[in-house]
Amino acid sequence: MAALKKINVMESVYKRNEKYAAEFNARLTDKRVYCVNVMGSPGAGKTTLLLDLAKRLAKPVFVIEGDVASDIDARTFAAAGVQAAQINTGSACHLNAADVVRKFDETAAGFTDGFLFIENIGNLICPADFLLGEHVRVLVCAVTDGGDKPYKYPMAFEKAGAVLLNKTDLLKYVNFNIDFFTAGLRRINATAPLFRVSGATGEGLDAVAEWLTHVAGPVFA
Amino acid sequence: MAALKKINVMESVYKRNEKYAAEFNARLTDKRVYCVNVMGSPGAGKTTLLLDLAKRLAKPVFVIEGDVASDIDARTFAAAGVQAAQINTGSACHLNAADVVRKFDETAAGFTDGFLFIENIGNLICPADFLLGEHVRVLVCAVTDGGDKPYKYPMAFEKAGAVLLNKTDLLKYVNFNIDFFTAGLRRINATAPLFRVSGATGEGLDAVAEWLTHVAGPVFA
Repeated sequence: MAALKKINVMESVYKRNEKYAAEFNARLTDKRVYCVNVMGSPGAGKTTLLLDLAKRLAKPVFVIEGDVASDIDARTFAAAGVQAAQINTGSACHLNAADVVRKFDETAAGFTDGFLFIENIGNLICPADFLLGEHVRVLVCAVTDGGDKPYKYPMAFEKAGAVLLNKTDLLKYVNFNIDFFTAGLRRINATAPLFRVSGATGEGLDAVAEWLTHVAGPVFA
Repeated sequence: MAALKKINVMESVYKRNEKYAAEFNARLTDKRVYCVNVMGSPGAGKTTLLLDLAKRLAKPVFVIEGDVASDIDARTFAAAGVQAAQINTGSACHLNAADVVRKFDETAAGFTDGFLFIENIGNLICPADFLLGEHVRVLVCAVTDGGDKPYKYPMAFEKAGAVLLNKTDLLKYVNFNIDFFTAGLRRINATAPLFRVSGATGEGLDAVAEWLTHVAGPVFA
């Protein structure tokens, strides 16, 4: 009985979230803002990669930064001259569309013709269920976290538009089987490009910036 | 209205879970089984550390392994001769006491006088809210994930009985500020011992085994 009630409540939560997300996506498209929902486990290197990508993209970048607590990342972006706003979820394990829309309207209402990156909470599970108005999802994984992640956390991989395999500069020090990782990814996602990147050395990030510019093309047209 | 309903439902979920967890904890204590709830983000190295600790402890070990999907880790334990059972949560982002009790009764009903490790889902957020019958919680972090985790994910650190800072063999290759990490931990948890360990080299794991043996003493007495 309680379980059934929980399911009904969650269904209405998902439905309302999807509606907000679809409306926000349409508004962003009108403003020629291409929105990227960036996911990954804690410490995968999302913030470092976004700082680097912001320099490589030809369009302006705005970052909405999601964390359970702290404004460490928003301050990091500000210190690097990248426009950013912070959402703290308190205890929630994912961002939702309503919170993102509110933060965008408060801090980035005039932002047009550029990239909006939403850095989701570090978590490979719950964020996959919540659309935020994005045009594409990008999943960041680190070689230091091991090659079994697509098998253990399939949902985040299934819905990714691209996978960034980060910290390749540490490959020689860890036991990471790229074939096992890639096979796991391809079992559930046949099409997402897989980029090998390093936030420490910049490896592979020109290719990611080029890909983003290409997929965002229709929004900027 | 929907939000209020959701809160009420979650409160009853927590309350029921706490009741199951307390009953299970009492049963385990009667059986002289010391139960450790092991948390950490995806890829922090929980499985590798448990494999190593199982060899260093003087009492038998049983592992209940939680993952969203796959039985990779349970097979890893079996291959190493460690008794283990797998729970797959499907989409749930944490284990709950009822699932753990059911799995224990199915696979480990005769287990007495030893350590029960429950390896939780890789997630620094939701698992912190669900007691599983444990006598202590151990949190595993990796230096490769950066030093800001206690600031961004306070709940997991707040309730930890010990923190294992793993992958110290990679410290020289990454930008990890141990003072920043330790200050963040101590802001919210003044007492949990912090062990520097490496699943790759075995560094620090004798000290962890000794600590576990000490804290488990009253259960084994």
